[in-house]
Amino acid sequence: MKACVITIGNEILKGKTVNTNAAEIGRMLYFSGYDVYRGLIVPDVKEEIGNAFRSLIGKCDVIVSSGGLGPTFDDMTVSSFAQEFDIALRRDKETYTIIKFRTEKKQLKMTKEREKMALIPDGSIAIKNEVGTAPGVDYKIEATRIFILPGVPAEMRSMLRYVEREIKLKDSFYFEDSTKIHGIYEATLAPYVSELMKRYSGRVYIKSHPLVDEGGESALEVEVSAKADRFENSKNVVNEVLAEIKMIVSKLRRVGN
Amino acid sequence: MKACVITIGNEILKGKTVNTNAAEIGRMLYFSGYDVYRGLIVPDVKEEIGNAFRSLIGKCDVIVSSGGLGPTFDDMTVSSFAQEFDIALRRDKETYTIIKFRTEKKQLKMTKEREKMALIPDGSIAIKNEVGTAPGVDYKIEATRIFILPGVPAEMRSMLRYVEREIKLKDSFYFEDSTKIHGIYEATLAPYVSELMKRYSGRVYIKSHPLVDEGGESALEVEVSAKADRFENSKNVVNEVLAEIKMIVSKLRRVGN
Repeated sequence: MKACVITIGNEILKGKTVNTNAAEIGRMLYFSGYDVYRGLIVPDVKEEIGNAFRSLIGKCDVIVSSGGLGPTFDDMTVSSFAQEFDIALRRDKETYTIIKFRTEKKQLKMTKEREKMALIPDGSIAIKNEVGTAPGVDYKIEATRIFILPGVPAEMRSMLRYVEREIKLKDSFYFEDSTKIHGIYEATLAPYVSELMKRYSGRVYIKSHPLVDEGGESALEVEVSAKADRFENSKNVVNEVLAEIKMIVSKLRRVGN
Repeated sequence: MKACVITIGNEILKGKTVNTNAAEIGRMLYFSGYDVYRGLIVPDVKEEIGNAFRSLIGKCDVIVSSGGLGPTFDDMTVSSFAQEFDIALRRDKETYTIIKFRTEKKQLKMTKEREKMALIPDGSIAIKNEVGTAPGVDYKIEATRIFILPGVPAEMRSMLRYVEREIKLKDSFYFEDSTKIHGIYEATLAPYVSELMKRYSGRVYIKSHPLVDEGGESALEVEVSAKADRFENSKNVVNEVLAEIKMIVSKLRRVGN
């Protein structure tokens, strides 16, 4: 099963904010049994937001977006999404009641900016915002399940638990573990990694990350991951391959790298 | 002028690594006078990497990618790019000499994994890797200038200075500054922000980021940014608008939020 992540917001493209939301969402998706095969980052522009969703519908089973759910002029994810797919907006009663209560309690005016936060696409399920105000959106187009989450990390995170419960696969378990290696070049290890990947024919994925480069003291993080129909199976094959890597490294050390 | 950022690597999609490269590249592009209008994150899959570049050629003036330049089987950015656009690979002599020297010095074997790091698209300029081994790539397709950088942050960063020198616009200067506001809701400020944006008709962009949500103690970061043909002009208009925002906030406080 495939998943995609959309991040909405100029602050991400500008590098003002580092995209930790996409990382947290990607992590949840992997550990729920999905492959994440595309990430998109789009600015606060109606057409770009609409296009981003459009370009992924039908290509992945799950889309999770974050960003653009607040009260300001450039919080436009819900309206852009609804317009792109010609869906009317409806008022989420529970959210509206909360906004009205808070607004009156503080003797503030009910403005269109406040009302906007209660609008969700008709036919969607509102995901309760336990931290903030605007709800998330749970919607389905064709075979693609779409979750629209806020950009404020604490709000996004609280809704991620809901998404996880809704989509977690019962027959796909991801496991990963890594080992740190000193004094062996990535290029020296590379052919052994290729051979292992071939031998395990798609059951594991091995990736090495140089922590310091070839030029200086080399350190490598070698990560092994697997997905299987049972958690034990993923874990066992990862451990088996990690043990093989450690043996290869010992041998390479003995022959002088 | 428009720019796009491509990040290549499963570790980013998996959320194992937070995408700081895209943030640093985006920041450099903004401060060089560009608008970044799309970010893509793709896995270590030949077709996905090729498609990512293909989908942006002609749509933006500059593409900067990071990731996939090392010696392992899944470091495939250069070959995927070259194959997608039917460009032959050539050996970069300088890089090859360095790899050969280092390899012989340590009495290691020259393998195809090591040789791979010296390959760049024919007709491209090699960007010297002052930290690591594999060079970056500077190439042009139609009107789009393409920079292919490594994923190791220190290596990427060293080449970013080269990219900046090559593309920095002489007539487009970006400036931003922000102010932190306590005790005013984002929704309360929102209509004033919209009015300011209208009044300055595209000369400034104002974005508010809630630091704590409406539900609790609210704090807002309000950021004002501008782009102009002279640095002074960007800076002045940003400061002018920030001063207006501070006045609005004072007034809102006096009337009780």
